[in-house]
Amino acid sequence: MPSLKEIADLIGGELHGDGGLEIGAVQALHRAGPGDIAFLARGKEGADLSGVRAGALIAARGGDVAYANLVLVDAPRLAFAQLLEHFHPRVPFWIGVAANASIAATAELGAGVSVGPFASIGEGARIGAGSEIHAGVAVYRGVTIGRDCLIYANAVIRENVEIGDRVIIHPGAVIGADGFGFDRTAEGTAVKVPQVGRVIIGDGCEIGANTCIDRSTIEETVLEANVKLDNLVQVGHNVRIGRDTAISAQTGISGSTRIGAGVIMGGQVGVADHVEIADGVMVAAKTGITGSVREKMIVAGIPHQEIGEWRRSMVLARNLAAMREKLRLLERKIKEMEEK
Amino acid sequence: MPSLKEIADLIGGELHGDGGLEIGAVQALHRAGPGDIAFLARGKEGADLSGVRAGALIAARGGDVAYANLVLVDAPRLAFAQLLEHFHPRVPFWIGVAANASIAATAELGAGVSVGPFASIGEGARIGAGSEIHAGVAVYRGVTIGRDCLIYANAVIRENVEIGDRVIIHPGAVIGADGFGFDRTAEGTAVKVPQVGRVIIGDGCEIGANTCIDRSTIEETVLEANVKLDNLVQVGHNVRIGRDTAISAQTGISGSTRIGAGVIMGGQVGVADHVEIADGVMVAAKTGITGSVREKMIVAGIPHQEIGEWRRSMVLARNLAAMREKLRLLERKIKEMEEK
Amino acid sequence: MPSLKEIADLIGGELHGDGGLEIGAVQALHRAGPGDIAFLARGKEGADLSGVRAGALIAARGGDVAYANLVLVDAPRLAFAQLLEHFHPRVPFWIGVAANASIAATAELGAGVSVGPFASIGEGARIGAGSEIHAGVAVYRGVTIGRDCLIYANAVIRENVEIGDRVIIHPGAVIGADGFGFDRTAEGTAVKVPQVGRVIIGDGCEIGANTCIDRSTIEETVLEANVKLDNLVQVGHNVRIGRDTAISAQTGISGSTRIGAGVIMGGQVGVADHVEIADGVMVAAKTGITGSVREKMIVAGIPHQEIGEWRRSMVLARNLAAMREKLRLLERKIKEMEEK
Repeated sequence: MPSLKEIADLIGGELHGDGGLEIGAVQALHRAGPGDIAFLARGKEGADLSGVRAGALIAARGGDVAYANLVLVDAPRLAFAQLLEHFHPRVPFWIGVAANASIAATAELGAGVSVGPFASIGEGARIGAGSEIHAGVAVYRGVTIGRDCLIYANAVIRENVEIGDRVIIHPGAVIGADGFGFDRTAEGTAVKVPQVGRVIIGDGCEIGANTCIDRSTIEETVLEANVKLDNLVQVGHNVRIGRDTAISAQTGISGSTRIGAGVIMGGQVGVADHVEIADGVMVAAKTGITGSVREKMIVAGIPHQEIGEWRRSMVLARNLAAMREKLRLLERKIKEMEEK
Repeated sequence: MPSLKEIADLIGGELHGDGGLEIGAVQALHRAGPGDIAFLARGKEGADLSGVRAGALIAARGGDVAYANLVLVDAPRLAFAQLLEHFHPRVPFWIGVAANASIAATAELGAGVSVGPFASIGEGARIGAGSEIHAGVAVYRGVTIGRDCLIYANAVIRENVEIGDRVIIHPGAVIGADGFGFDRTAEGTAVKVPQVGRVIIGDGCEIGANTCIDRSTIEETVLEANVKLDNLVQVGHNVRIGRDTAISAQTGISGSTRIGAGVIMGGQVGVADHVEIADGVMVAAKTGITGSVREKMIVAGIPHQEIGEWRRSMVLARNLAAMREKLRLLERKIKEMEEK
Repeated sequence: MPSLKEIADLIGGELHGDGGLEIGAVQALHRAGPGDIAFLARGKEGADLSGVRAGALIAARGGDVAYANLVLVDAPRLAFAQLLEHFHPRVPFWIGVAANASIAATAELGAGVSVGPFASIGEGARIGAGSEIHAGVAVYRGVTIGRDCLIYANAVIRENVEIGDRVIIHPGAVIGADGFGFDRTAEGTAVKVPQVGRVIIGDGCEIGANTCIDRSTIEETVLEANVKLDNLVQVGHNVRIGRDTAISAQTGISGSTRIGAGVIMGGQVGVADHVEIADGVMVAAKTGITGSVREKMIVAGIPHQEIGEWRRSMVLARNLAAMREKLRLLERKIKEMEEK
């Protein structure tokens, strides 16, 4: 068990209190006991800690927290994340290549790659050193996967998709399925437009469980570095998403849309096709974006509005009964005045 | 073929008519023929049955139905469900453990467990007696599955998830993927917060196809007993859902939200994070719940309102053109009055 | 490399310019170089082509396009789709039946069927000639799949589902999972109603990645010929969808609803149960359809309205602040008049 002093050194924090205290686990604030360390989120320094029983707390520097054992850092939640990794090191799913995996003769596996049972790696696929391919994953021909990636069970990666380094793909995600491209004959029959473009996933991206990222007709669907997608998200063909953008569950991005860097989207958002969203835009859950959002702002509503406008609209909409009442009152008064 | 008398005994019903009639199948009301039995939903007793050709009907006691052969019960639909099971006994997917399944040396399988081809069971996993694990299911290390569970093809259950007895998990569902937990550095780079918590699924739960239930950072995501989730539902990390709650397709529950018992949610509902929904609340499809619903009621709208209020708002919103007309009329009258 | 003359012949087009030009690839308009052919969408004939460097263009007959090398056709996008297929012929996923597939003794495979690694085909299943079953697909017992189908990796097809010819099922799709059918006891306990009906998928249908189509209690869920479903779509039990209907991502169709032919739905639409949608109806993204739409029209909004009405409602709703201002002004004036 590390001492509190060792933990402070690990997270680069300032130790106050008993550095020799042994810390057995990281815990949530209200669950932690005398052998645990927990964290106090930035801005919560004034909270009542009388019921907290944690052996030690991580808190923000300069926050004036009264607690016996403290480690002060600039970013408590990031330090907590670091400690979680330290106390819960990831155990590899599988060591080496399972005898019952299917590896094409022309596939190339880097050093230390692990491939679980019933995973299949197609012709010409290349998996970078240190990556893990879990049970039942299907990697089609010509796929490139970088170093230190983690592809969870039953994910599917279609042909020629390119995946960078340190990418995490959660179970059941589908990368590179055909975009939804159809044309119609004069008689109205839907005719498939082949989708032979590629999908490119940048370094450090994370793709949620059962999320789908489609390939395009002939160009590329691109996630720049460090994009984070939650579960059940739909990314249409020929979409481009900028770096560090985070998109919550069940959101859908229609074809050929461009999303900037550092965008944050809530869940169940829908974005129309061929629109542009500027860097740093924030989108409330369930918003329907029907046109471009060209500067950094927060949007909400269907169709989307700047969130302040949307809030005022909502207040007005919910005061309609009062407006109607006033209108009736005025009608009555005018009638009285006319009759006079 | 059972006789109508035998069927009446099986479902504890009161027989009227020809007890010797042989019943070959259970059928929908408008499809049933002379050898079939169908059911008449409670409240439909007054319906015109002149076109119905079923050999016999199950109907509600005390409902005064005029039909030659009847079995009267308290709950016709439940009796029908019981007969469906009787006439369509489930055939096991696989008998025993398939030679081409992958079972870790330290996994424990109870009596009568069946494991289909290409399913993988990780180290230390325990599967209770009578459970079926279908083709391609990935059970990670340390998972516990209770008795008489049914895990359909290609579902994925991540490490240390605990599943009770008689749980049904439909194809492609993902239990225990990482919650969507990120923090940002001062420069805006998204940093993953490890998700090392657990998911606990109570007895009798049913999880729809491609539904995702995330594990939390350090605490638990919990489904109490008998929770029913439809397909493509998203349950965020650290959520708790009370017993007998039913949630329709494509609904999403954000992190750390608490949902009571016996709640019924329509499809495509979104629930914000850290809110509480009281026992017995009903939620209309597509509702956006942005705050706690502290007592039993029906809600609708984005943001949610009590459904009566929401209906009145909708009526008012759709009468805006009339309101604007009245307003113009009053303006004109006042102008006239001013001019006089 | 085909000559432009050969390409014109292939797509039945009218050649203008250098028929001997060798065409190496099909490309997007703004990416094409001198060895590539691109297409100009119908209606775009007047566009500025000064920056276009394509060796040749496909354009609409009668559109008066000024470009050196042209192939004129009636439907440029369809011709482009045809050329995409010509330049990118699909490579079979697997030749023959993989040694590590699991094929039940009583399954029947037609001529030229290919089955990838870790796919499992249940008892009595029949796969038509020329169909491809990719890695990890689970075909349950009694399933029928027609000729020349393409079932991508890790899709799941539950027992007794019937699939026509030339059907494409994308990765992770689940066909025939149990419908979400429950009844409640007097005490409120949710009781499962067995789902023993079938799913029938017509010729030429395409089912998106991770899309779910449920089986019904006792009747059929039916997709008529050539229905196109995008990713993450939910089709409830006992639904019927007419031919050539196209439904975008994350849309959900509730149980027992009937959708006509040639319907086009945007993404994230929700349709209530037991409603009817007429042939040719178009539905805007995020619409909530709460009742039948009995004639061909475009609908939008929650609840849905004819789109013109919906647009007017939106304009009015967003002018509420102005209406309130007017109302206040009138109040003031009336007060002044009363005081006089």
